[in-house]
This record gives sequence, structure tokens and C-alpha cells, in this order.
Amino acid sequence: MLGGRMMELLRQKIENEGIVLSNQVLKVDAFLNHQIDPVLMHEIGQEFARLFKHDGITKIITIESSGIAPAVMAGLALHVPVVFARKRQSLTLTENLLTASVYSFTKNVESTIAVSNTHLSENDCVLIIDDFLANGEAAKGLATIAKQAKAKVAGFGIVIEKSFQPGRKELVQMGYRVESLARIASLEEGKVTFVREVQS
Amino acid sequence: MLGGRMMELLRQKIENEGIVLSNQVLKVDAFLNHQIDPVLMHEIGQEFARLFKHDGITKIITIESSGIAPAVMAGLALHVPVVFARKRQSLTLTENLLTASVYSFTKNVESTIAVSNTHLSENDCVLIIDDFLANGEAAKGLATIAKQAKAKVAGFGIVIEKSFQPGRKELVQMGYRVESLARIASLEEGKVTFVREVQS
Repeated sequence: MLGGRMMELLRQKIENEGIVLSNQVLKVDAFLNHQIDPVLMHEIGQEFARLFKHDGITKIITIESSGIAPAVMAGLALHVPVVFARKRQSLTLTENLLTASVYSFTKNVESTIAVSNTHLSENDCVLIIDDFLANGEAAKGLATIAKQAKAKVAGFGIVIEKSFQPGRKELVQMGYRVESLARIASLEEGKVTFVREVQS
Repeated sequence: MLGGRMMELLRQKIENEGIVLSNQVLKVDAFLNHQIDPVLMHEIGQEFARLFKHDGITKIITIESSGIAPAVMAGLALHVPVVFARKRQSLTLTENLLTASVYSFTKNVESTIAVSNTHLSENDCVLIIDDFLANGEAAKGLATIAKQAKAKVAGFGIVIEKSFQPGRKELVQMGYRVESLARIASLEEGKVTFVREVQS
């Protein structure tokens, strides 16, 4: 499926199955954040792979839990491993950790995300994938972790970007490439309005 | 890839990349629990699909985070949605919940897992997928949730079973079908010993 058609399918999914909870919060539990549509995730993974196929990606990093499905499908398409950052320490994840502090506006909590340094090194060129880009806290946390490992960051692959929040702008100002498959201009009046783009 | 060959590949991965932390704990952070091998997950998903292709599966349920990758690949192969149970409540997951209490022996904590009743109904025939089966706490919790929704449980698809712990036996005694791709008889002496099986 070509990129433009895949993005149109994603926009339709958001319009038909997304629920606008407020001017800030879009719930997509029907296909991304609780129930997952594996066929759509497969298409999304292929699209991320197409966008970054010339960038020498050696590893994908994401964050549990909703980033895992699109990241793993992109990893399948690019034939590279996926590492998911953990939001809390696990008893079996005890070696040297790369960590970053991430504030969640949705949950109003500060948490630590962690990746083992065993799985990320200066030889890596990483694609950072996440389900949502809003304030960019998780994205910047993952970039901080990549930086600690001295890995190169090729860019960000985002499924749904809330373009009215500052995440994208801040990442671009930091010099990062950001590829978002659906860009939402507004959630006002209970309605999803997408960023207008030239049709591909 | 035929089932027998895929299982052999998984056993090799466990032998080569798994780390025996104690007689009870096997760490497979290199390809399943922290870093994920998407190509292996794809094979695993296809194998679960092969095992349950005649069972009329309408939905896969799993639990965040390590169950998501194999579950989503099985969902891709079976063309059915995947629902992952959450371990803690999220602000955007506020409607009627199906819940179960799950004790984690690894982390020594009791937690509540939850699935929205929007995504599971009496018309569903579910395949429950998880990365590990040990004491069966998570598995039984997911079965409890399916039962609350009056959904039919076709069985369990497990990536790695620690056969020396009681989970499998208890599920089988409850009448469930359990398909585990790797069955570990012992982790004693720092070594992984698999359950001996007739070669396929």
C-alpha cells in the first residue's frame, strides 16, 4: 500500500473509531492503545520502513506499551531489533541502565524510563517510534537515552501527532526529523481536524 | 517455516541468548522481554495461527508489555484484533472494566489487570497469548476476564513455559488447551534443560 493511501486509511480509522474526550485528549483504544488492529499496524510498520529505508537504521527504540505494536512491525519491515524502554524497573532488568525522566501530562506523574545499555551502543543508528506525539516528553526521553549510548538518532516515526501541542516543534528545533502518519490540527468542538496537506 | 523448525530456532535463541539468573528465573531480554526480535516474533505468530486456525478465533487477548509483540504477530496471521490487558488504570480507560487480580511472583506484588468491556463480548472466541507461563497467575487472570465477558476461551499460546512451575498443570486441570512453543524442564546448575519431546 502506498504511503498516501495508508495515511488516508489511518485518518479514516481515527475519524470513525477515535473518541474525542476533550480538546486535548483523543482516545484511540479501538485500534492502537488498548485494542490493536494488527493489519493496520503492519501497514504502519511498512510505511515507517519506507520513510527511513535509506537511513542505515540498526535499531528501533520505543516505549511500553502502546509503542510496541507499531515499532515491532517497523522492525519486521526493516529487519532490525526493537528495544522498548520500560517505565519502571523490573527485577530481571538490573544491569547498567540508560535512564531519562519523563513527565506524563495525561497521567500527571513523573516517571523514569530505562533501557539496558546492553542493547544500545555508539554503533547504533536508531529510529524512535511512538504511538502519540503531544508534548514530546516521551520522545525527548527516548532521544536522551539514545544520546547517553552515543547512538545516532535518524529520526522519529509517530503514528498520531497532536500538532497543536508543542512536541513536534520542539523536536524539529532540536534538529530531529519527525515523520508523523496522522497530524491532528485540533480536537475542538468534539471533532478531529487534520492538518491540511497536499494530497499525495 | 514448519512448526518443528520454528520451535528449534526458539530453543536455540533461548540457549544462546537467554541468561539463567536463578533456578526459577530465565532472562530473555535479548529477544523477548526488553529487546524484541521482530522476525522471530513473526514466526511465532504464524505458529500460533497454525495451531489455532480451526478454532474460530475472533480475538486475541494478552497482557502488557511483553505479550504484545507475539500477540500482535499472531493477530496479523489470523486477521483478528488483539486486546492487551492493562496492569494499571489509565486516564483514558475509564469505562466499564473487566478486571482480575494477579499476583506476580517475580515482582512480589499483587496488581489488577483490566480490559474494557467494549472490546470483549460473549460472541468472542479468544486465544490468550503470553510471553511466559510460570505460576499461571497472569494466564488465569486473563481467563477470568474472558469469563466475565462470557467469551469462549479456545486456549493459551505461550512462548516460553517453565514446566517445572505449576501454571501449565493448573490450566490443563481447569480444562484449557495450552500450546507452549518452548518448554523448560529445569534451570538448575545455571543451565536450560528443555522438556524432552518426540522430534517433529
